[in-house]
Amino acid sequence: MASTMKALRKMQAARGLSLEAAGVPAIGPTDVLVRVKATSICGTDLHIYGWDRWSQARIKPPVTLGHEFCGVIEKVGGEVSALKSGDFVSAEMHVNCGHCHQCRVGEAHICPNVKIIGIDQDGAFAELVGIPASNIVRLDPAIPERYGAILDPLGNAVHTVLAGEIAGQTVLVTGCGPIGLMSIAVAKACGSSTVFATETNEHRRGMARRMGADVVINPAAEDAPRRILGETASTGVDVLLEMSGNPSAIQQGFKALRAGGRASLLGNPTENVPLDLVNDVIFKGATVQGIYGRRMYETWVQMTALLKAGRLNLEPLFGERVKLEQFEDAFQKLQGGMAGKILMYPNGMPQ
Amino acid sequence: MASTMKALRKMQAARGLSLEAAGVPAIGPTDVLVRVKATSICGTDLHIYGWDRWSQARIKPPVTLGHEFCGVIEKVGGEVSALKSGDFVSAEMHVNCGHCHQCRVGEAHICPNVKIIGIDQDGAFAELVGIPASNIVRLDPAIPERYGAILDPLGNAVHTVLAGEIAGQTVLVTGCGPIGLMSIAVAKACGSSTVFATETNEHRRGMARRMGADVVINPAAEDAPRRILGETASTGVDVLLEMSGNPSAIQQGFKALRAGGRASLLGNPTENVPLDLVNDVIFKGATVQGIYGRRMYETWVQMTALLKAGRLNLEPLFGERVKLEQFEDAFQKLQGGMAGKILMYPNGMPQ
Amino acid sequence: MASTMKALRKMQAARGLSLEAAGVPAIGPTDVLVRVKATSICGTDLHIYGWDRWSQARIKPPVTLGHEFCGVIEKVGGEVSALKSGDFVSAEMHVNCGHCHQCRVGEAHICPNVKIIGIDQDGAFAELVGIPASNIVRLDPAIPERYGAILDPLGNAVHTVLAGEIAGQTVLVTGCGPIGLMSIAVAKACGSSTVFATETNEHRRGMARRMGADVVINPAAEDAPRRILGETASTGVDVLLEMSGNPSAIQQGFKALRAGGRASLLGNPTENVPLDLVNDVIFKGATVQGIYGRRMYETWVQMTALLKAGRLNLEPLFGERVKLEQFEDAFQKLQGGMAGKILMYPNGMPQ
Amino acid sequence: MASTMKALRKMQAARGLSLEAAGVPAIGPTDVLVRVKATSICGTDLHIYGWDRWSQARIKPPVTLGHEFCGVIEKVGGEVSALKSGDFVSAEMHVNCGHCHQCRVGEAHICPNVKIIGIDQDGAFAELVGIPASNIVRLDPAIPERYGAILDPLGNAVHTVLAGEIAGQTVLVTGCGPIGLMSIAVAKACGSSTVFATETNEHRRGMARRMGADVVINPAAEDAPRRILGETASTGVDVLLEMSGNPSAIQQGFKALRAGGRASLLGNPTENVPLDLVNDVIFKGATVQGIYGRRMYETWVQMTALLKAGRLNLEPLFGERVKLEQFEDAFQKLQGGMAGKILMYPNGMPQ
Repeated sequence: MASTMKALRKMQAARGLSLEAAGVPAIGPTDVLVRVKATSICGTDLHIYGWDRWSQARIKPPVTLGHEFCGVIEKVGGEVSALKSGDFVSAEMHVNCGHCHQCRVGEAHICPNVKIIGIDQDGAFAELVGIPASNIVRLDPAIPERYGAILDPLGNAVHTVLAGEIAGQTVLVTGCGPIGLMSIAVAKACGSSTVFATETNEHRRGMARRMGADVVINPAAEDAPRRILGETASTGVDVLLEMSGNPSAIQQGFKALRAGGRASLLGNPTENVPLDLVNDVIFKGATVQGIYGRRMYETWVQMTALLKAGRLNLEPLFGERVKLEQFEDAFQKLQGGMAGKILMYPNGMPQ
Repeated sequence: MASTMKALRKMQAARGLSLEAAGVPAIGPTDVLVRVKATSICGTDLHIYGWDRWSQARIKPPVTLGHEFCGVIEKVGGEVSALKSGDFVSAEMHVNCGHCHQCRVGEAHICPNVKIIGIDQDGAFAELVGIPASNIVRLDPAIPERYGAILDPLGNAVHTVLAGEIAGQTVLVTGCGPIGLMSIAVAKACGSSTVFATETNEHRRGMARRMGADVVINPAAEDAPRRILGETASTGVDVLLEMSGNPSAIQQGFKALRAGGRASLLGNPTENVPLDLVNDVIFKGATVQGIYGRRMYETWVQMTALLKAGRLNLEPLFGERVKLEQFEDAFQKLQGGMAGKILMYPNGMPQ
Repeated sequence: MASTMKALRKMQAARGLSLEAAGVPAIGPTDVLVRVKATSICGTDLHIYGWDRWSQARIKPPVTLGHEFCGVIEKVGGEVSALKSGDFVSAEMHVNCGHCHQCRVGEAHICPNVKIIGIDQDGAFAELVGIPASNIVRLDPAIPERYGAILDPLGNAVHTVLAGEIAGQTVLVTGCGPIGLMSIAVAKACGSSTVFATETNEHRRGMARRMGADVVINPAAEDAPRRILGETASTGVDVLLEMSGNPSAIQQGFKALRAGGRASLLGNPTENVPLDLVNDVIFKGATVQGIYGRRMYETWVQMTALLKAGRLNLEPLFGERVKLEQFEDAFQKLQGGMAGKILMYPNGMPQ
Repeated sequence: MASTMKALRKMQAARGLSLEAAGVPAIGPTDVLVRVKATSICGTDLHIYGWDRWSQARIKPPVTLGHEFCGVIEKVGGEVSALKSGDFVSAEMHVNCGHCHQCRVGEAHICPNVKIIGIDQDGAFAELVGIPASNIVRLDPAIPERYGAILDPLGNAVHTVLAGEIAGQTVLVTGCGPIGLMSIAVAKACGSSTVFATETNEHRRGMARRMGADVVINPAAEDAPRRILGETASTGVDVLLEMSGNPSAIQQGFKALRAGGRASLLGNPTENVPLDLVNDVIFKGATVQGIYGRRMYETWVQMTALLKAGRLNLEPLFGERVKLEQFEDAFQKLQGGMAGKILMYPNGMPQ
């Protein structure tokens, strides 16, 4: 094996990324080394590229980015017996500590000591990536590589949709970025009845329709809660899936939620959000859930089962495919607001 | 309004039923009178026709049968304000007492003082039927009459499928009578992955495939648990929906259930069933649920939402349509083991 | 029976109440008439006495107040069979509509069409009160009258505490008014481990200790979240029971909540509350529940079981006992901030 | 450190155990070595001593027994950072595989590939024991050693009691061996109302009373279901905790269970048990749960929280205390049917 490899890295505390020759990751006895087949770019990668305030506080250059990927195991550590070279895999890139209160009560996904591969340590925008064996998820060969590359955000969507009852439920998805769009498909596949979606961007509204939304609303042009109450006999929706992080969308979402409904919040507001707790939560007897990451590993089991059974059509999401070397093009397109997922290939494009 | 009407009744403690001129039901201040548009015949009706041991103990002739139906409200009692003449409706025919422990803790469907309309008092195999207003379920006009006539057994299926997690789950349905067949469609609509079905009757196995089962097994010809374990990487299924009441099917179902799985039992065995509790329940950490009736009225809300949204295709289930006068033909066909639902019309056939 | 009775009424749209001779309530066929044995004054009654903005919008004089009480059935309507004269009872005074979505899915306590006896129609600060039979809760004679008079707020406490897991959990109660104090006792009775309580009023902090709180904090004198994190190995509490409606207490409560914790909000803020949703809800994977009223009737079953079994010592809560005629004294004491419950007797004081 | 140590071992495929000089356990990089402070003898140890059919199939001599214990860490492996020498600990002795379906969905306690330390590999009836770091549970110094020695069976009890709602519930414990007795204390601490217990052994009935049971029944002398139905207004108990494994107790337990109740089965029947599924499970809408081991590690968190908060008084359970060398005495006493726990000390008796 060569001792260096291509990697897309943040080299200094400033805007931009660069393609570097980096050392092949060293792995410990409980780790595996994975040859990366396909990756996808996350909104978080855009933030790090742009070096916003969050990135400045969190990222310690130099570091290789990339946490959405699939690949094939190249090598396993000495204590690893359940995996072997050649296995087709993806991975949960949140590495939990294993001994805090949350890890001990089955909530490893919110471990306060989490380290994220591709954020806090070298990630998958590279020919090879090292990962603890416990975080590896073996994939059925029936799952295509392009789906394997987006399991991290799909897991966010599945975690959010399945955080409560969904069969026969009316649903409102506020915000149609990639995870919002995926949530529409997941909700329909799991038996939701009417799915409403709100989104100000026209292109994304079109994608929402292609993903299966029944009623797509532009909240800049129409009173979304009034429309939704009108279409639900004044009851409101059973489930709010908040994907925008936009304060006004959050407030509107709560107004459109029925008494007794569930609001699952995934989008990250960048400021405090004033809530009408009495009318929107307390008198409504609503349940509000903060959603972070993916359940380890219930969500992975659920989503791979849905994919293997062919229950999720995510084709409308896939945009361009580029080699790792073309990363500047890819990042520019995404910064333009394109909602789909761009696939990036560190080991060459597939046929 | 005429003072008598056609009704299909059990007139004496013996085999058979007869078409009678009966008095129009008198209704109290909290009741409604419904003109019956379509009915369907239940296996229980067959038992009462045949006058088996259970019927002899339970049925007090004379009584009008029929508890699967839909219709249009003809008249409402003086204290009824939420319903009116002309409403298209079906009804939960289990009338609960309202004051026992179960009724008080949200489990009215297992009220020990339940009276069933069409079993314990005059039912819907008649031109008109009287029902407490609280038991009436208004139907969206988008739901076809033939679906409205089978909501009682569909509710059994929905109650069973949705008694636990179903999205992304592997499912085994043991027994493909009408409710088993409906369960297949409901499970698929609600995101289950692979659905296995076992059934000894060849005709019903064909129907199971048409309802969406992925793997259909004849347990008389093949070792069903071995086959299922083989197709689930030796894990077993996540969910067992027991619809047969057959002791051997129940035992096989438990063998095919994964550790940590859910077994929801709806089929009624006619004798005690020896269970290997240590290996099939305790060491497996399994959850076994007795399922009876339909949740009042969560199940009704769920199933009408699924129907209104067009998520359930039950067309393969519908067999012949007959007038009430042709009841003998209908009962004979069903006694022959035909799995579908025969629709029977007390007020004349629809166009 | 006399045709008039004593009643404490709001006679006009202005501050104050007056003792009146009112007609004995007429009851319909599904109602019962109850002779009131003991009542208790709620904070809501104080608001109505004071004629605040909420009261001005909601109350339509003339109306008899009073929704916390117990008594003995005097007479039952013609359709009532499960209750009889002489039964010792209390009642859920929220009268739900029975046919909305919430009523149909087992969430009658948040029926949007609710009418409250003692608010929207004549209540229990009178010799007699009329109530739908379905809302009556029969009480075991082992439950003392003084406990029977405070089941409405105790139900708020039980509903809040038991809205999620409580055994072995650390708990923070923010706000030690009567319901906060009751919540402390309920949490301890149901197996919570450490119970923290915050309260600025010194007298109420003393009562919190007497009700069983392990750590009582004055948030005006001490950084409450820091103290709580310090005593929970930096984890935070498993459960927040928010009883104050105070924005700062709500915000501090969220800071003290562990990742993965439950926040159950019962106190009513009078303005919008800015929440740090990212850090306090989303990244924490927290569950926030709006709590309103009492579950109908699961909460009643739970609380009467706890009382009958002697698991709740609420003695520290009981303050003075007065005749209905002494209402001005009682309201004045409560307006002074006294935390306990004053009992008021419309049919004379017990021996 | 000495290279050999005292250990109580099964040396050959025959009845009995022997005290041996064994090698100090070698530990791997992710393991720890614990100096054993106190142990307790399990019914399973008695079976292995007696060399019954189950033992013959499972046990591969030579092996050191012992899986109920606490101790102090002597040494940690090279990859272990969250634990250190001197930590006061106990451990979950079920070692799960980490990669099966159950391990992936948060049900590690029913991992089908489990290995049990003290059964399948060398255990804690020795001066030192080697254990994977992930299985170690650090104990608060407030927890006494004698409690630390019985966390394994206490965990069974806590797992069973808290497998569903318990606050305000009526409970029946069938079988008052050590785990049944612990369950009584746990149920009372967690807010259950009336606790019934059935047991044929008079001595154990006395212990059941001392542990807090409200009604203790000898099912050999009295019709237990009839008595329980009589004391619950014919409703039956909300919760059955089956601790006996006795077919007749199981059947009686189901007869005493209310419609809608929960039956949690922990006791292991040695033969198939005929169940009246229609009347006892299906028509009742009952939920039956198989309970095995302890949830990893929710149960450990719950039980140590209850112990640290002083909510569990288990004093009546403790019997004699012996040195490891006196094992024959201890095993003989237990074979006589004594219900309490004998503590055995491999490193000398505490002061």
